[in-house]
This record gives sequence, C-alpha cells and structure tokens, in this order.
Amino acid sequence: MDSHPIITLLTDFGHQDSFVGIMKGVILGLCREAVLVDLCHDTTAYDILTGSFLLQSAVGYFPPGTIHVAVVDPGVGGTRRPILAQIDDQVFVAPDNGLLSYPMSRGNTRAIRAVTARQYLLHPVSATFHGRDVFAPVAGHLARGVPPELFGPEIKDAVRLPIPQSGCDAAGALSGQVIWVDRFGNCITNISREDLEAFTGEGARRVRVLLDGRLLGGLVQFFEEAGRGGRGAIIGSTGYLELFVDQGNLSRQWSVATGAQVRLEREASQASERRSEISG
Amino acid sequence: MDSHPIITLLTDFGHQDSFVGIMKGVILGLCREAVLVDLCHDTTAYDILTGSFLLQSAVGYFPPGTIHVAVVDPGVGGTRRPILAQIDDQVFVAPDNGLLSYPMSRGNTRAIRAVTARQYLLHPVSATFHGRDVFAPVAGHLARGVPPELFGPEIKDAVRLPIPQSGCDAAGALSGQVIWVDRFGNCITNISREDLEAFTGEGARRVRVLLDGRLLGGLVQFFEEAGRGGRGAIIGSTGYLELFVDQGNLSRQWSVATGAQVRLEREASQASERRSEISG
Amino acid sequence: MDSHPIITLLTDFGHQDSFVGIMKGVILGLCREAVLVDLCHDTTAYDILTGSFLLQSAVGYFPPGTIHVAVVDPGVGGTRRPILAQIDDQVFVAPDNGLLSYPMSRGNTRAIRAVTARQYLLHPVSATFHGRDVFAPVAGHLARGVPPELFGPEIKDAVRLPIPQSGCDAAGALSGQVIWVDRFGNCITNISREDLEAFTGEGARRVRVLLDGRLLGGLVQFFEEAGRGGRGAIIGSTGYLELFVDQGNLSRQWSVATGAQVRLEREASQASERRSEISG
Repeated sequence: MDSHPIITLLTDFGHQDSFVGIMKGVILGLCREAVLVDLCHDTTAYDILTGSFLLQSAVGYFPPGTIHVAVVDPGVGGTRRPILAQIDDQVFVAPDNGLLSYPMSRGNTRAIRAVTARQYLLHPVSATFHGRDVFAPVAGHLARGVPPELFGPEIKDAVRLPIPQSGCDAAGALSGQVIWVDRFGNCITNISREDLEAFTGEGARRVRVLLDGRLLGGLVQFFEEAGRGGRGAIIGSTGYLELFVDQGNLSRQWSVATGAQVRLEREASQASERRSEISG
Repeated sequence: MDSHPIITLLTDFGHQDSFVGIMKGVILGLCREAVLVDLCHDTTAYDILTGSFLLQSAVGYFPPGTIHVAVVDPGVGGTRRPILAQIDDQVFVAPDNGLLSYPMSRGNTRAIRAVTARQYLLHPVSATFHGRDVFAPVAGHLARGVPPELFGPEIKDAVRLPIPQSGCDAAGALSGQVIWVDRFGNCITNISREDLEAFTGEGARRVRVLLDGRLLGGLVQFFEEAGRGGRGAIIGSTGYLELFVDQGNLSRQWSVATGAQVRLEREASQASERRSEISG
Repeated sequence: MDSHPIITLLTDFGHQDSFVGIMKGVILGLCREAVLVDLCHDTTAYDILTGSFLLQSAVGYFPPGTIHVAVVDPGVGGTRRPILAQIDDQVFVAPDNGLLSYPMSRGNTRAIRAVTARQYLLHPVSATFHGRDVFAPVAGHLARGVPPELFGPEIKDAVRLPIPQSGCDAAGALSGQVIWVDRFGNCITNISREDLEAFTGEGARRVRVLLDGRLLGGLVQFFEEAGRGGRGAIIGSTGYLELFVDQGNLSRQWSVATGAQVRLEREASQASERRSEISG
C-alpha cells in the first residue's frame, strides 16, 4: 500500500456544479492520504470515446499503482455495470460502456472485474450520480488497500467501442480522421508516428496534407516552422499527427470538428503541388 | 487537530483569474498539511442563494471536521461581517450575506460567530478581495487548530435568505420551481423526495409534470427509461426532483432558467392526459 | 528540503484537455509529496504578458521555497530556451519568452539559468508539449531537492518584455491602460496606488476617471459605495486601480478590452464636472 496513493479523475461533469468536489469528499472520507489529480472534466458531455482518448493520453505519465476514475456515463442508473480494470500496473474504475476502450486496446489488460460488492458503495446508490455513489467509494477503498479481487468477479465481455483506424487507400494515400480538437484548435488525428513513417518511407519525406479535401500544408518539426498564422501538420505530444495554425485556431478558422477526414499524399512534383494550392 | 485537515473552497471567482490559487497560497502558508478541495468556482457571479444550494449539496459528503470556505460576496469591503459557523460537525467561513442559508436551514447550527479577531487576517485587508485577506487566513488558522471561539463573539442575527418552498395549491397540484440548472442542462427543482412521496401517496403513482405550463412528461427511475432524447422527471442525486432530456440539454431546448415554475398533477385518466399533450 | 514542497502551475492550456493533469502526473512521479496548486489555466492562449501579470499577482501570497511553473509558450519546440529563475525566495520554471517579465521586474532576481541538463527532462522531448517534457520534470526534480545550479549555466540575457507604464501628460492628467479584465468584468489598470497617491496629493482628493475618453466616474473605497449598477474606480486587490460596475460587468457593458486607455483628471470645480457628465 502506497502511503500517498494517486487517484486521477476524468469526467464530463464540467466545472459549474460541485459534482467533482463531492466525489473528492467521498474519496477523502475513505482515504485522507490520497493525492487527487484532475485529468479533465470538460470533455464533451456523453462523448465516451473522446473521454477514452483523453484518458489514454494521460495514463502513461502517472506512476505504477495510480488509480484512474473515469465517469462519462450516459447510461447511469440503467443496466450497465460498473467495472474495475487492471491494465499494465494501474487500476481503472469506470462504467462498462466503452470508456476504457483506448486503455484496454493499448495496454496489457490483466483483469477486468464487474463491481458487485455492495459494501464498497455508498447507500443508497442514487439513479443519477454513480460518480459519487459507486466510482468514488470504490476508488477510495482501493486506495486504502482493498485488493481488486474483492470488488467482484472477473468478466470477459467488457464493452469495447471500435477505435477509428487509419489506412492506405487504393490511390496510395494515407487516410485518417480528426479524433480530438484541443484548446488551441489543433486537430489531433488517428495517424500515428509509426503510420506516418511507414508511409513516407526512406526517399519520400515530402508529404501533402489534405483536410476534408482542402490542402492544409506540409509536415513540420515544430509549430513556428510554419510561420505565424501558417498552417501545417506535426507529430504532436501524443505521438499522433496534429493539424494546426501557428498561434491561431485551425478548428475555428476552417470549422473542423471530430470526424473530419484527413488524407496524406506523397508529393510527386512541384507542378502538382502548385495545382493543388490553386484549387485548395 | 487532524493531521490532514480538509478545506473546501466554493466561490464565484471562475477560472480565468488566479484568485482561487492565491487563496490556496495563503492557506498553505499557514497550514502546509491542509488538503484543499475545489467545490465549485463557476457559480453565477453574485448569486448568493445558488452558491448556498451548491454548497449544501456537497457538505454531507465530507468528513467531520471539514472546513468549508465559501465566497460569493457582492458586498465585499462594505459593512457586511465575515462569519464562522459551526453546523453539525463541520465549520463554515463565509460573508454574512445569506451564503450559508441552506446549510443553516438543513443542519444543526451549533454556533455562528462574527470574525472580529484581526490577528487572524492578512494586513492590510483590501477592499475587494476578502477571499484572500479574510476567509483564507481564517480557514488556515482553523486548520492549524485555533478554536472557533477565538475568532470572535457569537451572534444571533446572521443573515438568512428565504429559501423557495414547494407546496400544494387549491387544485391539489404540487408546485415548486427550478432552483439550479446543471452542466447537462438538467433542471433541479425544490420539490424533495419527501414532498413527492407525500403527494403521490399510495394509490396514485402516475404523475404529470408541467414546466412553465408545458407538459414535460412523467416520472422515471433512471434517465435511459425516457428513451434517448425523451423528457422526464427523476429524483436526482441531491434528493430533489430533476427535469431532464435523456442525453440532451433541457435547459437549452426549452430555454429554462432558475425560477421556472414546476407543477405536478396526479393523473386522472388517459383522456385528460391526451388533452394536455395537445395543448402542451 | 521542505517535506511538502509547493508547486504552482500557470498555463494557457485551458480545462478541456488533460494537459495540466499530465504535467501533475510527471511531477508526482518524481516527488509524491509535492503540494500542487493551480494558479490559472485560462489565460488567453499565447498571451505571454497577461500570463506574466497573473503570475505576479499571486507569487507574493505563497511561502518561501515555492516553485512556480509557468507555461505560455507559443514558441514551443523552437529555439527559445527553458529557464529557471530564482526571484526573491522562490523559484520559477518557464520558457524564456518574457513570461517572467513581471516577477523579474518586481522582485529581486538572484539568478536566471538556462536549463540545459538533459538528465532532468523526459525523453524524448516532444516538439509540442514542453510543459510535460521539460517544465514539469524540472519542477519535480527541484522539489526533490536538486539544487538550481545543477540545471544549467547562469545567463544574463533572459527575455524581458516591455511592461506598459502609466505617466502624467502635459495637461497634468495621469494616463494608463487596462492590462487585465477579470471574471467579473472589472478592468485592472497599470495605475498603482502609489501613482494615484502622488497624483492626487494632499488637497485634491476628487478625481475624474475617463475610459477611452468616456467619463466613468470617481474613486470609491469599496464597490457598494457606487450603488448597485453604478460605475467607479477603486484600488483593487493587486494594488492597482480597477474600473468596475457594482454587481455588473463593465467589460461587457462598455466593450472594454486589454489596452483600453485610462485617464485620471483632477476635479477643478463642480461646474466642469457637470459639463463632463453631459458630454460623457
């Protein structure tokens, strides 16, 4: 048992209510030594897969033993189960609605359990706020040292949502999509550094990036390289291709939202590049 | 003296300034061991009664000994007093403007004191930021173990704002109002579970809910029961009736704000229900 | 080495991503005992000087030994250096882009170092998120007790941005500008209490405040003195003149933004005051 167990919180509860603070009260009532860290509470309401992506972007930067509590839970109070997942050397507590899809797909999922042991929940359990009544107390008991196997039986059928994949099309282009727009309006895609390196290969380092069919620009190594107000694409901090305007907001300038189509083409010649720019 | 005293913070300071961070610096300078928890900082600026409601929704989930600092303080720098209230087994520090109305009405108020002992304040006390100069240092000294009675004399005339009450009208309907709209657009009313159970009684479990005269729907046990996009009413996590759209935003869809009128009617027959829907 | 080192965080990362949470994970992985305090994450994206002002408004309220991590970093990944500054009895970690201009101008800057020791960074260092890869780990190592001189050589050419100054014009008026608009729409100027006292002097306490040429009102000692909805000017909590509407939002009512011109005139007579009000 760690003397200062770390518990992270990711929800779609926003900041205008006291929901998150209440969850912290429940946890601290069970484990006063817990170190509580807010990951994000402003993910789009009810958007499970985006919450899962944001969670995954953070977990690798927390120490072994960290407990992650994630609550994006449109089905609260219904039939969906609460689950506890041991992935790599961390523990996750969440509704069984796909919110752990990214961590389960990227990490080594050692065990997933349905939380059925009612002695670790608040009573009565409300129909609308399992963050308070289920997930927070489970995290608090975990932090106190209750072992995962006491919370309920292992399950094999946890919900996993399909994660959008990038791929090469018949014309030899690499296609993907925008999966997250960050606070700066940068558009994070599902095209990974590895995808990109396999695509560009040895002798073809120049690439043209199109966003919903419109020519965005080329690849850069850092934002300023595009010049102030210039557009470009960069391997971002998550290891995925990001589209951006230097010191601007691409999402607003071009009205880009999650799901927008991204296409990378190898540059053939200067001539074809000029043509694209005219029509872009 | 607890070794890790919990101090919660609820303000209308928002997140775009460093006001809340500054309060934490003052507290930690006095009590490094304090565990600081943000309850909410985005309550409507200057809206005392809503801040009071949000505070009350949280206090029951914090352990005995918790210190709650609440600052919604349009009269800062004027004649209103700072107070310290012992309610149940917790301590509250706030301006004497009604911000503690809900906790005082719901809990056992053991003592309320005017804070007059200037040695527990920062100097000079500014005219505009008592969160930093008065309420944070008082909380810090409380957390260090200074007993409440040293901060000032007991008072009997603390400000209590009228709390909107629900009630039955001549036609036998149960009337209340919306007192809070949460991040999801759910409209929390002042009709409690007990009010509702007394109203529906034994044999009349079907109820029709009207919002500003418009038929909203019936009661459900959990959100999904209404069907995606369906409207309904549910006893929410605070123990009060909430009006909602499943996975939608009722406040935006129907332009509902705090103060909107809510009316519950017992269902008489299928026929009368049909008529209401046509006119709704 | 303090047993509970305080680390503050100020960024322009907002709250919709997990950037800040990730930085905390990195810090806690290095120093579990660190006490993390959010100063502000909603400062305008890329606005270095405003971030610097917000940082300065807070540092005086934190204990000696506090480590301040500030990241407003439009040049991330480019040639700008990361720096570590010892100012008064605190330590600052930031990009060398002027973000420390206010603390360096107001405090006793004992040493500024370029951070060059790569063993205190994450590897690889990304091109887009030095908050995670550079500034957070440097703060974590500082909190563990690594002395500042091990992070890199002292430098003398750290970037200092010009800070807007107030001054008296030929007509004898005191001129300044709005440098920050807070959550309440109060407009904080660069006219200090000392500027104001030197200007008003002994026998001329009545002053007329103009904002972009429009008569705002006079000086008050506390907000309520202006009357609900009344406008005025007050020495705010930072020690600078603030323009406000009591329980209203001056920035919205008059469309005031950072950079708006403020002018204080000594009142000559009742007659001239009346004329101004008619034309105001």
